[in-house]
Amino acid sequence: MVEIPESHPRRNSLISRKIIVEATKQGLLADSAMIAHGRGEAFDYLLGEKTSEIARLSIKESAARLIAAKHPVISVNGNTVVLAGKSLIRVAAVLQCPIEINIYYRTEKRMKLLYDFLELQRIEVSKEENPLDWMGDWEAAVMSVEILGKEEDGRIEGLEGPRAICSAEGIEKADVILVPLEDGDRCEVLVSLGKVVLVVDLNPLSRSAKMATVTIVDEVARAADLLLEYVIKNSSDVTEWDNDLALKESLKVISETGDL
Amino acid sequence: MVEIPESHPRRNSLISRKIIVEATKQGLLADSAMIAHGRGEAFDYLLGEKTSEIARLSIKESAARLIAAKHPVISVNGNTVVLAGKSLIRVAAVLQCPIEINIYYRTEKRMKLLYDFLELQRIEVSKEENPLDWMGDWEAAVMSVEILGKEEDGRIEGLEGPRAICSAEGIEKADVILVPLEDGDRCEVLVSLGKVVLVVDLNPLSRSAKMATVTIVDEVARAADLLLEYVIKNSSDVTEWDNDLALKESLKVISETGDL
Repeated sequence: MVEIPESHPRRNSLISRKIIVEATKQGLLADSAMIAHGRGEAFDYLLGEKTSEIARLSIKESAARLIAAKHPVISVNGNTVVLAGKSLIRVAAVLQCPIEINIYYRTEKRMKLLYDFLELQRIEVSKEENPLDWMGDWEAAVMSVEILGKEEDGRIEGLEGPRAICSAEGIEKADVILVPLEDGDRCEVLVSLGKVVLVVDLNPLSRSAKMATVTIVDEVARAADLLLEYVIKNSSDVTEWDNDLALKESLKVISETGDL
Repeated sequence: MVEIPESHPRRNSLISRKIIVEATKQGLLADSAMIAHGRGEAFDYLLGEKTSEIARLSIKESAARLIAAKHPVISVNGNTVVLAGKSLIRVAAVLQCPIEINIYYRTEKRMKLLYDFLELQRIEVSKEENPLDWMGDWEAAVMSVEILGKEEDGRIEGLEGPRAICSAEGIEKADVILVPLEDGDRCEVLVSLGKVVLVVDLNPLSRSAKMATVTIVDEVARAADLLLEYVIKNSSDVTEWDNDLALKESLKVISETGDL
């Protein structure tokens, strides 16, 4: 990788871009993953590449809902694994919930590559110091996180073909699902099954954003880091969340870019 | 390619996406071309995927400047060739100006692939009917368009390395350059050399957009089709163009999406 100077104002964005290009070359991502990433880049650019106040509130709400859940699960696709895999493993370790690899264009090869990649990330995370303000045996907490996805023993009712495949112990059983960068169709079906769906999507106008119970309009790696802080803090209750109002707030942040 | 229904509201956008994915597989585009395309998609989404009134005015102004030029040239990169190559060949045929293939990540292989691709497009365009309101021998007009880029006998003063390479009869000699999807650095240098630089860029906040003489904030294929109409009509004069004001107008169009 070409070095990006520490001082570059858009350093994080450029690093993410390089990670996506590299992961595509390695076969971890589907054909159109780079295009999806580019769309995200543009929206993040309009957000000033920082977490807005409304995004912070939606992350806090998501943390409360994950903590209150009976069977929480974190569902990850290729882009999420390469951009925020480690951060989400930390979140799963604190919550003691499983992570399910669930990809839209499912091939056995990509599933295996992503599984191995996430497994490696998990080992790396297990060697880290305890996260700030978290007490306990970190290595044990991290290594007990279940990585699901390969079993393919569950189904999402209401979807057809490979897109319906999931894990029985993961998405199928879950009452609360964190699904960053989810497809609109699947998001809609998960909500219709009565599940609480927490989405991370930089486009507040996307169908996923509109369908979700709580939409975090933020870049997935930033959002995951902040989510970790909130699940550790565990200081807030589930509220009556008005997601339409939250989306309007996010749109306002984006449209204020016009005044730059 | 999977068929996209005629009735799909975002049909053109989805077709463009497929073209970019396919062209990447064929080696026509650089690694990050898909990411750049995705960014464009997001901005176009915010523009409602249609040509705004201010974009129409900037296309009209660009037509007037190309017609008034002594040595106009149309500089194309990979994404431009695959998305709008045919339309720009038509524009070049009407203007009787050369097209120069000029790519940021220059490799001999990609130059050759793009040259062959554009040459094929030219033959296809030459077999078409005359464009509406254009009189003359269309096949002769199209086949006399020079496709430059492989000579590498010119230099852009003020740039270093492969990015400085251009054609002596193309960009080096030109007084007016239409450069869709141009890099910010190169745009800045071309302007500093006293050239009139007409840019097509969906991001009104990009450095290219800010540096250009006239910025067309529109999708390149739509812009090229409308440009053809204006160069055929040849009905307007060059004006004192306030590009900063035009960019502010484009930003207003984008930020009004917030009211959707």
